[in-house]
Amino acid sequence: MSLPPVEPLVRLPPGPVDLSSIQTDATPGFEGDKEAGEAELAAIGPELAGVQERLFAERTTGSPRSLLLVLQGMDTSGKGGVLRYTVGLVDPQGVQIKAFKAPTKTELSRDFLWRIKRALPEPGHIGVFDRSHYEDVLIARVHQLASAAEIERRYGAINDFEAELVASGTVVLKCMLHISAVEQKERLLSRLDDPAKHWKFNPGDVDERAHWAAYQDAYEIALERTNTEVAPWHVVPSDRKWSRNLTIARLLNERLKAMAPVWPVADFDVEEQRARLLNEVLQT
Amino acid sequence: MSLPPVEPLVRLPPGPVDLSSIQTDATPGFEGDKEAGEAELAAIGPELAGVQERLFAERTTGSPRSLLLVLQGMDTSGKGGVLRYTVGLVDPQGVQIKAFKAPTKTELSRDFLWRIKRALPEPGHIGVFDRSHYEDVLIARVHQLASAAEIERRYGAINDFEAELVASGTVVLKCMLHISAVEQKERLLSRLDDPAKHWKFNPGDVDERAHWAAYQDAYEIALERTNTEVAPWHVVPSDRKWSRNLTIARLLNERLKAMAPVWPVADFDVEEQRARLLNEVLQT
Repeated sequence: MSLPPVEPLVRLPPGPVDLSSIQTDATPGFEGDKEAGEAELAAIGPELAGVQERLFAERTTGSPRSLLLVLQGMDTSGKGGVLRYTVGLVDPQGVQIKAFKAPTKTELSRDFLWRIKRALPEPGHIGVFDRSHYEDVLIARVHQLASAAEIERRYGAINDFEAELVASGTVVLKCMLHISAVEQKERLLSRLDDPAKHWKFNPGDVDERAHWAAYQDAYEIALERTNTEVAPWHVVPSDRKWSRNLTIARLLNERLKAMAPVWPVADFDVEEQRARLLNEVLQT
Repeated sequence: MSLPPVEPLVRLPPGPVDLSSIQTDATPGFEGDKEAGEAELAAIGPELAGVQERLFAERTTGSPRSLLLVLQGMDTSGKGGVLRYTVGLVDPQGVQIKAFKAPTKTELSRDFLWRIKRALPEPGHIGVFDRSHYEDVLIARVHQLASAAEIERRYGAINDFEAELVASGTVVLKCMLHISAVEQKERLLSRLDDPAKHWKFNPGDVDERAHWAAYQDAYEIALERTNTEVAPWHVVPSDRKWSRNLTIARLLNERLKAMAPVWPVADFDVEEQRARLLNEVLQT
């Protein structure tokens, strides 16, 4: 028995955004506990992998379709966890992951979308952006890395870019992983507690916490300005890792199923090929 | 209780190669049946994912190390299956897969290694080549896509290239998926039987079977000429899919463990950072 769609529950409605009104520890559309949630995620795996394979197969017919999953969120919100536990459920051949770091000099010398356009998924693939062009209106706004006029310009540029992307056959699934400042503190402390996680810790992450409110403001503005009909935002409560992974798996599954990729029909005569194989005389 | 290393069992010894003397349906270093083999593969998963994560972490210290898994084999030998079931065991963030198709015009206008060098794994990653520069001495030899002199040159060029790669910190793990002509016929027939697999079938694959013996010759020459100390070949019996997946998982695990990546040591004062977090006064 499959769950009803989670998409309507986490899709951001149009209009002004107040992140503080969205619970970070909710478990949208799921009544069970962590154990049940993990079991549900595992149960979705084969269905997700199946529909992904059909999308992957479809490209051999010349179809340009693909899906781009955009993951945004504060440090420790779990972009890496989603990659590992949700995206990891499908065949890695069909996945193209791009992690965006601080732009290089070359990248800074170009329009902010230049590096983004070079990293789009190929036909048939699920592309995943671990951070994205949204950093250019988030950290860029908080730390004034660009002029106010340039940042203002970017919202529109993003909408135009995403609309083109959708028109060319890419489903754009945007997820903001929503955690609380308290949960982030817990996660940073637990990274400090475990020497196997020290490599994930950056003292700069603590400095950034001083800008927590400014980041939430920047997110609210960005979400509102870029929450378009063709590429809407989803706010995924992420204080509970299992619920975050499950919600995104469900979203991904729902969007892929809505694309309804089908197995390509053979462009050869199946019986003829079977006969060729059965009648061949092979020298080995 | 872990199994003894499989590497010595499938590593190709130096000297002339006779593929017909290597059983395609063997299950090297494993006594159990399919069910036991699949359980063993699942059991290796967490260990493999753990050592992969340490390699991935290591790159943050500036280490250039990476691992390149080269998958070669006749059509249907299971390169895709290895990607899905073996490579799929590790975090997709740390994996970079490149499938090489027939070269484009631009690629043909360059040296055959040009496109290869552009697809090498980044530090900390496992790169996987689904087909590789070896096609340039395999299909190229069978179908005379290059002059005899050029193909002759390529063996040396490959050895020089791989030696450089190893010297720069990339472990090169080369696997030839070894199937019989009979098994290939079965697999092609089963693709015809299943409409969900028609997209994987190409009538050209049947034509290619007429060149089976020529391909085996080309493989034997390529394996012998490029079976170097620093980048040796492994011949992986692949008539049994489960054994193929398990053997490559074991090889990958053994090579990664031999690299012995360790968790990076914190370059900050852990107590100081903990105190900063615990004492902060945060405005949210």
